[in-house]
Formats: sequence, C-alpha cells, structure tokens
Amino acid sequence: MIFERRHIISTKDFSREEIDFILDRAGRLEPYARMGGLDLLKGHVVATLFFEPSTRTRLSFDTAVKRLGGATIGFDSAESTSTVKGETLSDTIKVIESYADAIVIRHPREGAARMASEISSVPVINAGDGAGHHPTQTLLDLYTMRKECRKPIEDLNVAIVGDLKYGRTVHSLAYALSLYKARLSLVSPEQLRMPESIINYLRKQGVELVETPRIDDVLADADVLYMTRIQKERFPDPSEYLKVADSYRITPDTLKGVKDDMIIMHPLPRVNEIDPAVDSTRHARYFRQAFYGVPIRMAVLSLVLGKEA
Amino acid sequence: MIFERRHIISTKDFSREEIDFILDRAGRLEPYARMGGLDLLKGHVVATLFFEPSTRTRLSFDTAVKRLGGATIGFDSAESTSTVKGETLSDTIKVIESYADAIVIRHPREGAARMASEISSVPVINAGDGAGHHPTQTLLDLYTMRKECRKPIEDLNVAIVGDLKYGRTVHSLAYALSLYKARLSLVSPEQLRMPESIINYLRKQGVELVETPRIDDVLADADVLYMTRIQKERFPDPSEYLKVADSYRITPDTLKGVKDDMIIMHPLPRVNEIDPAVDSTRHARYFRQAFYGVPIRMAVLSLVLGKEA
Amino acid sequence: MIFERRHIISTKDFSREEIDFILDRAGRLEPYARMGGLDLLKGHVVATLFFEPSTRTRLSFDTAVKRLGGATIGFDSAESTSTVKGETLSDTIKVIESYADAIVIRHPREGAARMASEISSVPVINAGDGAGHHPTQTLLDLYTMRKECRKPIEDLNVAIVGDLKYGRTVHSLAYALSLYKARLSLVSPEQLRMPESIINYLRKQGVELVETPRIDDVLADADVLYMTRIQKERFPDPSEYLKVADSYRITPDTLKGVKDDMIIMHPLPRVNEIDPAVDSTRHARYFRQAFYGVPIRMAVLSLVLGKEA
Repeated sequence: MIFERRHIISTKDFSREEIDFILDRAGRLEPYARMGGLDLLKGHVVATLFFEPSTRTRLSFDTAVKRLGGATIGFDSAESTSTVKGETLSDTIKVIESYADAIVIRHPREGAARMASEISSVPVINAGDGAGHHPTQTLLDLYTMRKECRKPIEDLNVAIVGDLKYGRTVHSLAYALSLYKARLSLVSPEQLRMPESIINYLRKQGVELVETPRIDDVLADADVLYMTRIQKERFPDPSEYLKVADSYRITPDTLKGVKDDMIIMHPLPRVNEIDPAVDSTRHARYFRQAFYGVPIRMAVLSLVLGKEA
Repeated sequence: MIFERRHIISTKDFSREEIDFILDRAGRLEPYARMGGLDLLKGHVVATLFFEPSTRTRLSFDTAVKRLGGATIGFDSAESTSTVKGETLSDTIKVIESYADAIVIRHPREGAARMASEISSVPVINAGDGAGHHPTQTLLDLYTMRKECRKPIEDLNVAIVGDLKYGRTVHSLAYALSLYKARLSLVSPEQLRMPESIINYLRKQGVELVETPRIDDVLADADVLYMTRIQKERFPDPSEYLKVADSYRITPDTLKGVKDDMIIMHPLPRVNEIDPAVDSTRHARYFRQAFYGVPIRMAVLSLVLGKEA
Repeated sequence: MIFERRHIISTKDFSREEIDFILDRAGRLEPYARMGGLDLLKGHVVATLFFEPSTRTRLSFDTAVKRLGGATIGFDSAESTSTVKGETLSDTIKVIESYADAIVIRHPREGAARMASEISSVPVINAGDGAGHHPTQTLLDLYTMRKECRKPIEDLNVAIVGDLKYGRTVHSLAYALSLYKARLSLVSPEQLRMPESIINYLRKQGVELVETPRIDDVLADADVLYMTRIQKERFPDPSEYLKVADSYRITPDTLKGVKDDMIIMHPLPRVNEIDPAVDSTRHARYFRQAFYGVPIRMAVLSLVLGKEA
C-alpha cells in the first residue's frame, strides 16, 4: 500500500484495506500522541493553512506534527493572508509547497482542497472544505469505534442523529461505515434528512439502514450513538428549532434502557445536544474521540511523508 | 516539596518555602533562558490558551517552553476559537488536556483558571484571569527583588504606587511580600486605595505598612519603587485623571534624593508613569524584570511537568 | 567579513562583496531549505514581530528558522499586541530583545526597523518598513538572477516594470544592481516613474539605463523581466488604471520574440500583471524566486547569529 506523497482529500479515495492500514498505524502511534518522543519529522515543516478558524482541528494537527518531532508554519484565518490583496488560492499553494513538506488546508469553499492537491507537488491534507470533505475526522471516528466498542465495526449498529442534510461529517462517516457494512439508523427531523442520493448509494452497497425522526426508536439497539449539532439557522421558524433541539437532547434520563456498552460520540463542539451530566456516564466517548484526532493525524502525516513508524 | 502535576492558580496557594524553591530553580535556569540548550521538554507540548490578548505574557511563556526544548500549541485571542460557536470553557479544556502536557490559560473572567484546573488532568497555569490572579507575575516580581536588591526581601521597604484598588498585580504582590514580612508603602489616589480587606489581612500578618496619596512621602526610604499603570477609565472626570497621572509620573527629577540602590519596577506596558529618560538611570529594572519572566516560567513549567533541572 | 550581531536594515548597508558572501552561503544552505536536517539554531529563539500582515514573508522567515533547527515566537498583526494599550515600539523591542536571539520586524512606518536596531542588543532584521526597505527581498532577487540566468549579474539587462515610484522592492533592487553595473530598463507609466533622485544616483554610479513607458521597447533585449504590481489606488481615474494595467499585463503572446533564456520575476502576490498561462512557460521564475526566500533568510539568520554553516 503506497501512501507516500499521496493527497488526503476525501474518505472516498480510500479502500477499506487502506483505512484499516491507517487505523493500525494510529494504534501504534497512540502512545507517542500522549507523551511525544518521536523524531520522525525532525527538520520537517508542515504548513497548516486555515482560511477559516477551526481551533480543535488546527490544534490537533499542530500537536500531531510536534509529537512527531516536526515544526509547523501557517495561519489561523484568512484575514492575515495575501488573499486580501487579491492573491488566488492557486498562487498561495504554489508558494507554500516550496516552503513546506506537506500542506494541511481548511477552506470555506467546497473543492478547495482538491484544487490545491492538483497544484501542489507536496502532499495536501484536507482539513475540511465547506460542505465538502474532512477525511481525518472520519478516520478518527472509525478509530474511536474500533477502540471503544466491544465488537468489530462490521457488527455495530450505529445511530447517527441530528442534521443529516448539511452535516459534512455524517456524509463521510456513512460512506465509510458502508465499507464495513455496519448497520445504520438515521435520526433527523424531516427537513434535515440524509440526502436521497446518499441513501440510495448506501442501500446499493447493501447497507442495512432505517430512517426515523424519533430518537427513541433507535436507542435500545444502538451500539454507537453519534450525535451532531443542529444549527438554528437551518430553521425559518425559531420555535420549530427549539422543538427539534429539545427532542434531540441527550440527558442521563434518555439513556435509561440503552445497551450497557453503548458509546456516545460527537464531533464537537457541542452546544445543547448532550447534557454535561452525561459526561460522567459510562457511555460518553466524545472527549476521547477528540483526542484520537492526534494519533490519526500522526498516522496520516507520517504516511504521506513516507516515514516509517 | 511536590510540584509535579500541581496547578498554579494563585500566589496564595504557595508557602514561602515553596516560593523560595521556585525562585532557586529559576536562578539555576536563568543562563538557559538566555541561550537555550536544554532538552527537558523535548517531545512535550504546552498549550497557551489566550482568550484575551497579552503579548508579553504569551511570548514569555512561549520562549520559556522553547528554551526548555518543548513545543507550544494555542491561540492568541478568543475570536478564532470554538467559543464563538457556543462551546463552554469546560469543553475546550476537556479537549485540550488530551492534546497537551500542560495548559497555560489567560481569560478575561475571574475564576476561569481555577475552574479549568478543576477539570483538567494536566497542570493548569493561570496567566491572568480578569481581576483575579496572575501568579507567575508575582513570582517574577519577587525574583527581580531577590536578584536586583542588595538586601534580602525581608529587609526591603517596598513602595507600591498607582491603582491599588483594581490592580491584580499589586494585590498578589502585597500578599506575597507579607510572607517575607517586607515593609510596604502603599501610594495611591484616594479613590484607588488598596481594598480594606487586603489592608486588614496584611496588618494581621504583622506587615508594617503605611498608606499615603503622596509619592514624595515614600521616595527617600524606598528600596523598591513598584510603579503601576493608572487607567483613565477609572476616573469619571478626565481632568481628575490628568492631575493624578501627572503627580504619579516618575522622571529623573523625581529621583533626586532616593537611595542609591533603589530599584524601579513596573509590570509593563507603561504609558506615562515613567519618563523614558529614567530608563538609563541606575534605578531602572523594569525591562530586566520582564526578562525574568522567562526563567520563572521555565522553573514553573519544568516543576509541574516533573522535570529535573 | 563580520556579520555576527549585525543588524540587517537596508540593502545600502552592504558592499557588493558582502552581498556575494551572503549569496554564497545561501547557495550552501539551499539543500537544507528543502529538507531540513540542520541544528545550527537548536535552542535558539527568533522573534517575528509583524505589525502588519505579510504571510509570504512571515512564513518564509518562519520556515528558515525551523529548517535551521530553531524556534520562533511572535505575532502576525498589531491588534493582539500591547501597542493597543499605548506601548511604544521602543518598549516592545526592549522587552523582546531579552526573550529572543534575533528580531525580525515588519512595520507599516518607514524607519521603524532602523529605530528598533538602535535600541536592540540582539540583531534586528528588517522585513519591510512601509515605503522603506526590505533587504532580504533584494537579496533573494539577486540570488534568483544568479541561479536562474546563464550570465553573471553584471552582464544582465534587467527590465523593471510597473510602479517604480512607490514600489519599495524596485528601489532597493535598482540600488543593488548598480553595485554589479547591470544594465537597467525602467518601464512605467508617466505618473509612476522612478524618482529623479534614484535615477541620478544610478547614473552617477555609471549604470547604463533607459526609461520608457512602453514594455514593448524592452522585451527583445531583456535577460530579466521583473514585474511588479500596480495598485489601483495610485490612479485618481479608474479608467486610466485599467488602461495601464492592461498594457502592462504579460501573456504568452507578449513573450513572442523574447530571448529564449529570459526569465520573468515578480515579488508576489501578483494580481493581473502576469497571466497564469505564463506559469508553464520556460520563462516563469516567480514561484522559484519565492522559494529562494528560504535559503536567503537561512543565510542571513545564521550569519547574524554567528553560526557557521
């Protein structure tokens, strides 16, 4: 399997074997994610170009590079860049590729990372491009399930809850889970259902799935409860939003009757979807999930830079 | 004395012995603060979370980490964080504690650092929380007195001048000096006097102190003249502010008649409190004081991370 | 030749021998600019103080430090600094010189870097001060000509095109080229001609030069076509600007009839001056030119810090 010099743009670029290979490597790197001590990227420079802010993703890539012994350059918002002087993304990439050994890019425009990868001679890693892809998020989601569930991913029943229409995270996740033939329960308000085209794709892949607007329908059987944020802006009527937000809020009460080893995930930041009282239950895994971003990004970075772990 | 894994939130958490221990270590680390060459924090990551800007404090922590061979991650203002998406400080800390080995936090809200320390499993260092505490500032103030005065701290007469009501720095400093039983002269306009509760506390500790609105009363006897900024916003009447600002301004003229070895300190930034002509007098120590922030922060970081210097 | 502890403020501070010395060193460091692997600045801290944004310059200094094994501290805009609290530049420098081993400064005010150098006890490198100087830009321009042209700089015919009145880059470049007695062709609209004083200076140095408003006059003979951005704001009448911008735009068509080995340079960012279709011609060198900023800055930093390469 060849990862060196590859761009990491979309989950769809990977086969299941390749994903498993990355997860395996993340597993080997995880101890170093906690304590450092590697020199794999010594002397190397990774550019983190965040054309829109995203603290968690940026800091976790930054941590990954530094735990591997490398250095970063970059910016955390577009305002301090030459973009404001009218420079094209293409020109920015052509310069940065000559400074850095790899480029991590976050951009508000869908397709921006793919475009960057077509220009850059060094590996480009997509850290989220608008409504497009965010492959390392999907990889860390899978890694979390592999580490925190008692069954292999293919035997899991994964309930995905919230905004399934606009949520970038859940589209990529559903695709990736289809590679494992995990069962899916899709829970969303009517107006935020998973797009028809994705549903059709999943069914064609032979994925067993149910759709429902009621979270209660899926709780008893779920092995993973994957919560997402529902944005107020999606609703023309604020009272409609409040009703939905309320019915999709997880509290210790909601969790009566779930499986003992069911885990709750969330890409964070959360707002009201999960009551903080849930944090101390045996089910909460969202903070550990955030941590797993570090070993996953260490794995991806070391692979595209051709460094043996 | 155990510092490993301890949070550094308030000067009041320390005994005099513990403070002396930190100052001793800073003394041993000072040469490395100038030239680097240590690998104590190699592979380690320290988060510097500045929810409000503070260049001097941020850069001096950043320097401290790097002189120790470590790396930093973080941000320099709240705008580029998930806080704007509605994330709580508690959730931010729960994520960052899994990325970093220690967290340095600056926050506009009093008590924020204490709150962070109650959540974090890695050491939290308070770099200023609103009107609350800023313990490494106090430590570097004491270190400056120890290094730059010819007498031990317990024999010093320290005049503290300016806004003694709202000034976070001076409350912590007065407390710390009370551990050494240094004599205090408190100089402030009537409306910016040191709060009664602190005065009472100091007296109860047996501190010999005088209060006066006139700086001339204290100049001749002071070993340390600790100046602070008086903010215009504290005065309803601008002309009242100007009168005060003027009478508390130090110039070479003011310094006629002071002790030969009296030193002038200031937490910086200064605005008009000290005439730049004073910088070249034998009394000025405020820039050296700023430098001492580096060895002090190296000492604190290496201690809480359990690294032998 | 002594560079250790020297400030790098203006191209005019250097003799031709000194420039050649720096270019030689950049040549030796270039392989490491691509792959790192040096520990020359291990334990060292370089401050990058950008009082106005300049991504390219900042990131290339940052890369240079890290490829040399050092660390950086700093900020990327004035907003997050104590400047907003009223601190003078002089005070900022007096503090930072005690944290860092060298200071890279970008400031909107002409003369700011010189002023900083008069205060600082550590080397100050000017990374652009308003309409003033930007010496490492000139050095990388010369390095590009040396590396990419088939003749020595003294035999080149260099056409400089665009805003020659306000363009900081081209003033320094013309000065530096005069040290080599390269021939100059100055192409600009009437209202943006090179200032009389510089023209006089160049002639006095014995430089052979022509001035013309028409780019066609110089294309056939040029060895180097140095393009610069013309800013809309320089023209009271937008239609006047459009006419000029159009006539100074380089396209593959424009390049018919130029010398085979003529190279096109641009300090970047470009806006419309060079058609992207030119990027894939044999003439384009502007992205490589941007890269050469890294070895040049590595050379300058290692020299002023007294590190043998």
